[in-house]
Amino acid sequence: MKTLLLNRDDVGENARMEEVIVAVEEAFAAYQHGNVQMPAKSYIDLPEYNGDFRSMPAYMAADDWDAAGIKWVNVHTDNPETYDLPTVLGTMIYSDPRNAFPLALMDGTTLTRKRTGAAAAVATDHLAVADATSLGIVGAGVQSYTQLEAISVVRDIDTVVVADKRDDAVEAFVDRFGDEFDVRGGSIAEAAQCDVLSTVTPVESPIVSAEDVGDHTHINAMGADAPGKNELGEGIVANAKLVIDDYEQCTHSGEINVPWSRGLLSDEDLYGELGEIVTDEKPGRTPDDGVSVFDSTGLAIQDVAAAHVVYERANEKDNGTPFELVDTRLR
Amino acid sequence: MKTLLLNRDDVGENARMEEVIVAVEEAFAAYQHGNVQMPAKSYIDLPEYNGDFRSMPAYMAADDWDAAGIKWVNVHTDNPETYDLPTVLGTMIYSDPRNAFPLALMDGTTLTRKRTGAAAAVATDHLAVADATSLGIVGAGVQSYTQLEAISVVRDIDTVVVADKRDDAVEAFVDRFGDEFDVRGGSIAEAAQCDVLSTVTPVESPIVSAEDVGDHTHINAMGADAPGKNELGEGIVANAKLVIDDYEQCTHSGEINVPWSRGLLSDEDLYGELGEIVTDEKPGRTPDDGVSVFDSTGLAIQDVAAAHVVYERANEKDNGTPFELVDTRLR
Repeated sequence: MKTLLLNRDDVGENARMEEVIVAVEEAFAAYQHGNVQMPAKSYIDLPEYNGDFRSMPAYMAADDWDAAGIKWVNVHTDNPETYDLPTVLGTMIYSDPRNAFPLALMDGTTLTRKRTGAAAAVATDHLAVADATSLGIVGAGVQSYTQLEAISVVRDIDTVVVADKRDDAVEAFVDRFGDEFDVRGGSIAEAAQCDVLSTVTPVESPIVSAEDVGDHTHINAMGADAPGKNELGEGIVANAKLVIDDYEQCTHSGEINVPWSRGLLSDEDLYGELGEIVTDEKPGRTPDDGVSVFDSTGLAIQDVAAAHVVYERANEKDNGTPFELVDTRLR
Repeated sequence: MKTLLLNRDDVGENARMEEVIVAVEEAFAAYQHGNVQMPAKSYIDLPEYNGDFRSMPAYMAADDWDAAGIKWVNVHTDNPETYDLPTVLGTMIYSDPRNAFPLALMDGTTLTRKRTGAAAAVATDHLAVADATSLGIVGAGVQSYTQLEAISVVRDIDTVVVADKRDDAVEAFVDRFGDEFDVRGGSIAEAAQCDVLSTVTPVESPIVSAEDVGDHTHINAMGADAPGKNELGEGIVANAKLVIDDYEQCTHSGEINVPWSRGLLSDEDLYGELGEIVTDEKPGRTPDDGVSVFDSTGLAIQDVAAAHVVYERANEKDNGTPFELVDTRLR
């Protein structure tokens, strides 16, 4: 039996954003309904290489499909300089839950970007104003592209302001999307005035000030992924309608981890988890809401949901490279 | 950058037993010296499919090499009947610890068999009588082959007795090894009289009786892998020189878990861990020893050590199929 190998182009082509967003929303709903198994991420810390490995196994059952797999991913901060490699590399094994056969091996790097964009879109769909037309993006790095790709599926975005101190990164972003959107470089303050703001930076301390944020802006805080890191300035999170993806992960390493660890934020400041909103247990944006914030840390079920879309679509279209990797002989 | 795909033939050919045994012994030594990182196996239980998934990430540093990776493996008991697939399927991602690039993806099923045989050989080397020439094997299934392959590297085995109620399994085993060894089918009692005995069955209750075991037999108890399972009858383990691979895993799901959970066995019955013996912190077999038992549950560092051998050797020989799976562009 053959396993389908799906490289970055295969994943990029088959992770159709409309479908990934639906699958990721189904993943959050399944999580809320208790229909997932997601052991805590486990870490291997390698300080001698300024890096770590993370394993993210998960199983989820939506209404009419289920999926299982594991993403093996890392953060090695010296990679670009020392090895000409990205800081983060991901490999995804996508398995049939019924018999554990590895249906596909895929580029987990592209998958991560897609599913992260999709999570922002799910949150935006429920939390941004209905008539949002402008999107601000802080950080024009690898994760910024799928923010626009995904959010423009759920809102009729026409204007995009992208802020990054690296001019070439801004230029590349504008080049990529200039034909489809009115997109320009701008300051963080300008980006923060948009109807929707996504922050996708690796900064350690806040770069968005409370006074810059629009009155009804919905913020997707995507960047913080480790204890001590956050992107949003004092007062933003505490005064916002605050939605998280997962309590354990967010309080440990999400946008809220810094004020949380200082005791400046507590359970009563949390409006809820995204799963509660997508299942209508709690309403999303209401007319009285001002700023809303989605704190995203990234869940293993998002990867499995996105991998499901990629595999099903690729398989249907005979994309990818079938390869007999695993021994399936009974004897 | 390309990742090397190594299927069952590539793994089989490049997991040269002499080298895998050395690497696995180095893994046990590294474990003893604290030079490994091995998060607890994490489980996804899927009772609706009579199955589970297990993720086994690890990093280990030997004296002059280090290695990292993860094995994603399962136990789905209905597989042979329902899907014509083995109960256990494994996929191994072998990564460069310096930058996390996935150097190889390999058939984890073949790898598991090899590293399991190698662990038995390491234990046998330290615990069996020096002039051992006979090997008994109980259970002629998929794991039995690498027991003989590996143990015959560390002892001058000429006679092999294999016991299994499935005649065709015994016949297949005899066919495979008949040219190299004096090998025949026999009873469990006959197998247990040999200098070395390996039990590799999935039984839930003991099948080897204390009175059958030779006076100086070394037993590799490889089969038990879940709470409630054991292969060795009452009195064998309690009266033996008892060596385990890992305290947590063995007391939870190894050969000793059943007497342990009943309070019939405790810390004082344990002679030590295999790591203590390979590092000479405790002696292996001494002239006064009678029966010895090695309780093997299988550690993630064994997989990583074996994968290291396979990758290095395959790479050297240009074996395997290079494939560009993961996106390594910086932007």
